[in-house]
Amino acid sequence: MHKQEPHLSRMKIALEEARDAALREEVPIGAVLVHRNSGDVVARAGNRTIELHDPTAHAEIQVIRDVCGVVGAQRIPEYDLYVTLEPCPMCAAAISFARIGTVYFGAHDPKSGGITSDVDLYSRSQIHHKPQIFGGILEEECGSILKAFFQAKRLSL
Amino acid sequence: MHKQEPHLSRMKIALEEARDAALREEVPIGAVLVHRNSGDVVARAGNRTIELHDPTAHAEIQVIRDVCGVVGAQRIPEYDLYVTLEPCPMCAAAISFARIGTVYFGAHDPKSGGITSDVDLYSRSQIHHKPQIFGGILEEECGSILKAFFQAKRLSL
Repeated sequence: MHKQEPHLSRMKIALEEARDAALREEVPIGAVLVHRNSGDVVARAGNRTIELHDPTAHAEIQVIRDVCGVVGAQRIPEYDLYVTLEPCPMCAAAISFARIGTVYFGAHDPKSGGITSDVDLYSRSQIHHKPQIFGGILEEECGSILKAFFQAKRLSL
Repeated sequence: MHKQEPHLSRMKIALEEARDAALREEVPIGAVLVHRNSGDVVARAGNRTIELHDPTAHAEIQVIRDVCGVVGAQRIPEYDLYVTLEPCPMCAAAISFARIGTVYFGAHDPKSGGITSDVDLYSRSQIHHKPQIFGGILEEECGSILKAFFQAKRLSL
């Protein structure tokens, strides 16, 4: 349990971002980027595709762009990503381009994800950098926010 | 030949952007977005991942973000994309999220593309919007800029 602690506390920050996204009527997914050596959370975001009028403004893309901008590089191998849902194919590719070291995700998404779905991006030979992947961190909590959001959407249609 | 003319002239603008990208030492890929009914070229860009410190600043992502920002929406189904190289998996997914109607691309990229490679994104059930695809427009010209760029890189290593 002690070893898991930093991962849980970082995922909880990502969950806060997911909850804030839901309050903005955005798909409730949150992400944080952590500097591997210092352990500092250097960026945090929830989805903002509606607010920003930007279909690429997924939580993962936003924290990657934020940190790349601050660091002044398009590759940030010193950082690890925490995200409440398995990244989609767009984000999985961006994570590889950014050379993120490790991806810790919450809920699995075998239907629409980029990793455990049949897209299976990181098994493809075209992917030059394959991050380490740990899925299922606070899986139930991460998944239930999404389920509740989409159930409420259907009820209000 | 007459029917091809608008496609060729739009791809030539994308090629100009690719050439400008090469002058900036960026991977020489260019893209334009065209309003389908008016035929107006509303955005044009070349890769700027190095300059902008942004691994997501591929030509396609930039023109999509530009037009979405101007239109004020995350979906722009009234627009078609022209790009000198088959989109990568990240861009192919973003194109689908943006609901782009038709993608016209120049050179095929069966090794690293998102469409004709084994990623084959638009054949996957998770993709809710599959744009129409026309590849091979000015293929030789679009491909030769990339080949020359990477050959020169190798020579200067």
